[in-house]
Amino acid sequence: MSNRKYGIIGTGALGGFYGAKLQQAGLEVHFLLRSDYLEVTQSGLVVDSKDGNFVLKQVKAYNDVKKMPQCDVVVVALKTTQNHLLSALLPPIIQPNGVVLVLQNGIGVEEEVARIVPNVEVIGGLCFLCANKVGPGHILHLDYGQILLGAYAANYQAIGITDKMQQIAADLENAGISTELTPDLLLGRWQKLVWNIPYNGLSVILDATTDELMANPHTCKLVEQLMSEVLMGAKSSDRLIPESFIQKMLEHTVKMTPYRTSMKVDYDQGRPLEVEAIFGNSLRKAKLAGVDLPKISCLYHQLKFLDRKSILKDTTDLT
Amino acid sequence: MSNRKYGIIGTGALGGFYGAKLQQAGLEVHFLLRSDYLEVTQSGLVVDSKDGNFVLKQVKAYNDVKKMPQCDVVVVALKTTQNHLLSALLPPIIQPNGVVLVLQNGIGVEEEVARIVPNVEVIGGLCFLCANKVGPGHILHLDYGQILLGAYAANYQAIGITDKMQQIAADLENAGISTELTPDLLLGRWQKLVWNIPYNGLSVILDATTDELMANPHTCKLVEQLMSEVLMGAKSSDRLIPESFIQKMLEHTVKMTPYRTSMKVDYDQGRPLEVEAIFGNSLRKAKLAGVDLPKISCLYHQLKFLDRKSILKDTTDLT
Repeated sequence: MSNRKYGIIGTGALGGFYGAKLQQAGLEVHFLLRSDYLEVTQSGLVVDSKDGNFVLKQVKAYNDVKKMPQCDVVVVALKTTQNHLLSALLPPIIQPNGVVLVLQNGIGVEEEVARIVPNVEVIGGLCFLCANKVGPGHILHLDYGQILLGAYAANYQAIGITDKMQQIAADLENAGISTELTPDLLLGRWQKLVWNIPYNGLSVILDATTDELMANPHTCKLVEQLMSEVLMGAKSSDRLIPESFIQKMLEHTVKMTPYRTSMKVDYDQGRPLEVEAIFGNSLRKAKLAGVDLPKISCLYHQLKFLDRKSILKDTTDLT
Repeated sequence: MSNRKYGIIGTGALGGFYGAKLQQAGLEVHFLLRSDYLEVTQSGLVVDSKDGNFVLKQVKAYNDVKKMPQCDVVVVALKTTQNHLLSALLPPIIQPNGVVLVLQNGIGVEEEVARIVPNVEVIGGLCFLCANKVGPGHILHLDYGQILLGAYAANYQAIGITDKMQQIAADLENAGISTELTPDLLLGRWQKLVWNIPYNGLSVILDATTDELMANPHTCKLVEQLMSEVLMGAKSSDRLIPESFIQKMLEHTVKMTPYRTSMKVDYDQGRPLEVEAIFGNSLRKAKLAGVDLPKISCLYHQLKFLDRKSILKDTTDLT
């Protein structure tokens, strides 16, 4: 059993799930919360999981980062739309020799974190998790859960497998979370975008689930074309993803249970969309290398329009 | 006063409006109707127009093309989604020396008509009309109304101003409909698409009016990029539209009254969308010349998905 201290920034479905699993396995975990702080202080965290339900009656919950101890591993589990908060949240709680583990969507997020805590190792984690928060401190884990870890270095150069990656992987595995290590974080991020860009984008724009998109030959074709553009984006970063990867993703999606993407869930609940981390950063990265991705750009502009509309709607509901 | 006999195929808002204006000016007009046949036979046509309301108590209404006389000018005023009916509707009622006047959206529609009635002159009419059918045989004319006429020749070669164009223009002007003549129909069709492609497409996909699209910098940018692609499409047909045309369209739209496009009206009412005539034909024409229009293609696939969804919804309502 390691004695690494974990701090979870953002205790939603994802942060709450992984944090709870780590604590259940015996690690010391500190949770930063906002809206659910009172309930979690009183009643703890409830995880209804396909791998077995459990309740953590006592959790170390905080509503202020200043009250938290310094941690060996700080897990960034906020939505990327909250990343403007990181410069205030990260520095106070990270150990000098600590690690920031970024469990966020999109690309380029590790670069932001490295600018904020330049002397700390940053590791990216790509989560394949299907979980929702169904109430305050109450998480429903539906499917999957594995994490792919990759170390970040300047300009996303591939630096192989680090000691800290292996330590975190051991903690996660020990908590029952299947973990893989990649020597090339950027490749992993582009690979994940092959799925995320078409399905997250089109599900919001066309009000559709994955099975509806795959049942129509036109959206099926468009998904494939968008995936090809992601491969062009990856290539502009000198990362080669073979064409066969597209076919694999398409076949995988056809076989999946009909799925409402995370961006669609955000949209339906009037929450801000992760358009910049997933679409904007991809486009900017490719553009810096002189590569234009016209169909992804089309989706980007459409989502920026809908994003603003959804936030306006949300504000209206509150007043 | 000319003695040309007009036949109107499709007595919706557009066909009903122009047909009624021609009859009111003293011409013999025969109307083919489907859903409104009984009401129009009994009560005639009612036009509430910004230029003055009027009622035609007696109209020559038909529910079967076989009962109609042959006409000098057959006006195709159906939605292009009904064009599979034209091969049955056109041949019986066109005079040997007659004209077919195609008052439809999109591009390539005259080619279809010319295949059906190869020995008859085909003229394209681009209508700038804002009118709705508000009840059976009841048309509300809100704004505009002018028509741009251009003669069709094989491969859309520009053949200048024909006698028949001038005769029809005289009839229309005489009926109070402002008319212009173009020597190059294809140029006119591409120019109209500069507006129709971005606004019709995005209004449906993003559930937006023209003013909402122009108020957001992202959709404003996307509209401009789509317009640029239409210019590329026109260029692939050897038709040059200057860049300044885009700025003119954008400024014009900003100044317009907030507008729900015709495709959005169709979508909201569960009617089939004119995706093929406006988007599909443009893409195919450009592709034949080796030109790819990626953002228009993105909209095309999105609209094909939504089109099917809307028709399915409509069917559900009926059962």
